Amino acid sequence: MNPRLATIAPSLLRAINARKRPGDVDLGLGEPTLRPDVAPFEAALERVRREGLPYTPNAGLTELREAIARYHAYPGLEAAENVCVTIGSEEALYLAIKAVLDPARDEALIVEPCYLAYPKLCALEGVRHRGVALDAADGFRPSAERVLAALGPDTRMIILSSPSNPTARIWPAAELRALAEGLARRAEPVWVLGDEVYRELYYTPEPPASIAAFHPHALVAGSLSKSNALTGLRLGWLMGPREVMAQAIKVHQLVNTAASTFSNHVAMEIFARPERLAAHRPLYERQRALLLGLLERHGLEHAPVEGAFYCFVRLPPALAADSVAAAEALLEAHRVVAMPGAAFGDAGEGWLRLSWVATPDALTTGIGRIAEFCATS
Amino acid sequence: MNPRLATIAPSLLRAINARKRPGDVDLGLGEPTLRPDVAPFEAALERVRREGLPYTPNAGLTELREAIARYHAYPGLEAAENVCVTIGSEEALYLAIKAVLDPARDEALIVEPCYLAYPKLCALEGVRHRGVALDAADGFRPSAERVLAALGPDTRMIILSSPSNPTARIWPAAELRALAEGLARRAEPVWVLGDEVYRELYYTPEPPASIAAFHPHALVAGSLSKSNALTGLRLGWLMGPREVMAQAIKVHQLVNTAASTFSNHVAMEIFARPERLAAHRPLYERQRALLLGLLERHGLEHAPVEGAFYCFVRLPPALAADSVAAAEALLEAHRVVAMPGAAFGDAGEGWLRLSWVATPDALTTGIGRIAEFCATS
Repeated sequence: MNPRLATIAPSLLRAINARKRPGDVDLGLGEPTLRPDVAPFEAALERVRREGLPYTPNAGLTELREAIARYHAYPGLEAAENVCVTIGSEEALYLAIKAVLDPARDEALIVEPCYLAYPKLCALEGVRHRGVALDAADGFRPSAERVLAALGPDTRMIILSSPSNPTARIWPAAELRALAEGLARRAEPVWVLGDEVYRELYYTPEPPASIAAFHPHALVAGSLSKSNALTGLRLGWLMGPREVMAQAIKVHQLVNTAASTFSNHVAMEIFARPERLAAHRPLYERQRALLLGLLERHGLEHAPVEGAFYCFVRLPPALAADSVAAAEALLEAHRVVAMPGAAFGDAGEGWLRLSWVATPDALTTGIGRIAEFCATS
Repeated sequence: MNPRLATIAPSLLRAINARKRPGDVDLGLGEPTLRPDVAPFEAALERVRREGLPYTPNAGLTELREAIARYHAYPGLEAAENVCVTIGSEEALYLAIKAVLDPARDEALIVEPCYLAYPKLCALEGVRHRGVALDAADGFRPSAERVLAALGPDTRMIILSSPSNPTARIWPAAELRALAEGLARRAEPVWVLGDEVYRELYYTPEPPASIAAFHPHALVAGSLSKSNALTGLRLGWLMGPREVMAQAIKVHQLVNTAASTFSNHVAMEIFARPERLAAHRPLYERQRALLLGLLERHGLEHAPVEGAFYCFVRLPPALAADSVAAAEALLEAHRVVAMPGAAFGDAGEGWLRLSWVATPDALTTGIGRIAEFCATS
C-alpha cells in the first residue's frame, strides 16, 4: 500500500455526521438545501437527444472555458487556455498542488482556519505544508502581514479561501493587494491558490476581490456547487497562467480524462445567463438576517459573517479547550449537529462552525439549543 | 513546477489527430459513434426535479455500488464496499495505482502493447514501471508464461487489459488462471489491475473472463463509456478487496469528492435493466463482419479481433520500422487516420491500430486506401 495514505487522518466532519440521529437539528451541512433551477438540465438533455454524449476536449468545452474566463475577467486569465473544467473545485485544488509544487523541495503555506482538504491534498502529494493562523482575537480577519511574516525560504504556494470556509470572512481588496506587493519583493515567485468556491455568496457592499486581480502568480479554484445548489453536478474550474494550466491539464487528462459532458452543457446554460449565478443570493441574505438576529438575541460571540453560509461561533472558556468534545456533547445532550473548529486546523480550536442553510425553524431551534449548551457548560 | 510532469511525453494519438483535415477518413477514434439510449437521462432528470442534485456519498450511490457488484458477481467482490464509482475507468486506473503502490519501492509490470495511460499514470505517481511484450509473431496472444517470466523482485502490480486496446485480444480464462496460479507461488502478493473497459464488446463464444475470478489480489476497472456509447458520462468504477477500496476511496474523496450525481442516476437506470449493457453488441458484430471481409479481400495481416472496436494491422516490412512515419504518410497521402502501433509502447512498433466504429462506407474506403498504401510502399 501507498504509505502516504496512512498519514492522512479520517475526517472529523464525517465522524460527527456519523453520530447524527433522525430528528437532530443539522447545522453541520456543507451544501445548500435549495433546489437548483431545472431549465439548464432540460436544455442539456435536448443536446443528448441531438448529439449523444461524446467526450469534451480534456480541458472542457472551449465555449465553456471562454465563458468562465469572460465572466471572471481576471487580468491575464481571459482566454480559454487559462481555464480547465474540473470535477468541482476539489479537483481544481488537487491540480494546482500537483502541477505547481515539487514535493522534493517546495512548501505550501496554508491560511488557517481552513478547509482541511488543503493540508490533506498536500499530504497525499508528499508536499511539505505549514499553517499560518489568522488572529482569533480579531475575528480571524484576513491579514497579509501575518501571512507574509510566515513565509519560509521554500514556500512556493500560499493557499487561502475567500469567502472562507469555515470563518465566513472575506479577504478585502487592500489585504490581497498588500499580499501581492509583499510577494513581488521575493526573489522566486510564490503562487497563491485562491479557493473562490463561495465567491457568489457575499453580504458585503462589494463582491469579493480576487487574488488574481493583484498577483501574476495566482491560481483560482471555483465551481457551481454552492452558488447554484449543484454540488452533485461536479463542475468546477481551475484558472491560471497558460504555462501552469498546460501542466494542470496534463494531470487532469491522466487522472480523469475530462469532466462530464452533460455537466459541461448544464454549465454552458448557466454561464449563458450569468444572472443565474447570483439567483440564490437574496435567499441567503434573508437567512443570514435571521441568523444574526438569533445570535444577537442569545449573546453568542462569532466572527463577522461576510460570505458563504457558515458562521464561526466562539465556545465559552469551559468548552474552548476541546471543540471536538464540545460538538459531541452538543449532539448527545442537545441534538444539534455543529462542526468542531478543530476540524479546520489548530487555529479553529475553541470555536464551532455552524451552517445556516437549514430551515428557519431548525435554525431558530438549533441556535437556541447551542446558546443553552454554552450557558450551562 | 512538479518535475515529474516534464517526463510525461505528449500523446502521439493527439499529435496524429491534430493533423486531421475535413474529409479525411477517421479510423483513429477511441469512442463509439453510436447514439446512447436517452431513456436513462429522462429518468435522471425526473430525479433532479424531485430531489435537486446533492452530493452522492464519496464512493457513489450505495444502490449503484451494489448493482455494479451484483452485475459482475466476482468472488469476494460482491458488496457495495468492494466498489468505488469513479470518473470513468481512467480515474479507476489512477486510484488503483495511487492506493496500492509505494513509489519508494514498488514496481508495476505493464503488458504491452497497451493503452499508454498505464505507464503515464505510473510516471505521474513516481512509480517504477516496466513493459512485458506479448508476442507479435503470435498475434499478441495473451500469455501468462511471458508475464510470469518477466516478474521482478519488486513487482507489486501487473496491469493488463482484456479485451485489449489496441490489440483487440481477450485473455482466455485458462491464461488468467495460470497467471493467478503463478502469482500464488510468490511470497509477497502481486496485484493484478484488470482494465475491463471493453468487457461488453466481445465476439468470442463466451464473455471475457476476469482476473477477479481467479486471483484474490485483483483490482478491476470498468465503465459505461464504451458499452453504452457514454464516454461523456464519465461514469466508471474500481472494484477490489475491501481494505484496498478503503484506501482508494480516500484518494477519490480528496481528488474529486465524488462522481456526478446525475451520472450516478443514469447508471442506476442502466444497471436496473442490465440488458442495456449489451444492447450495442449486435451492431458491433455486424460492423466487425464487414471489417473482417474487407481485411481478407485486401490481404491485410492482423491480430485476431476478439473484442473492443479496434483491429491491430501489421505494416509491410518497408514500413514496419517506423509506425509513426507510416501513420503520418497514410494521413498525408491517402487521407486516412490510423494510430501508429508505437503509440501503444515499443511492442506495438510495426503495426497500426484501426478503429472500426466509422460508417460502413468510411470503413470500406479507409481499408481500401490502407491496402493500397501498404502495397505501394
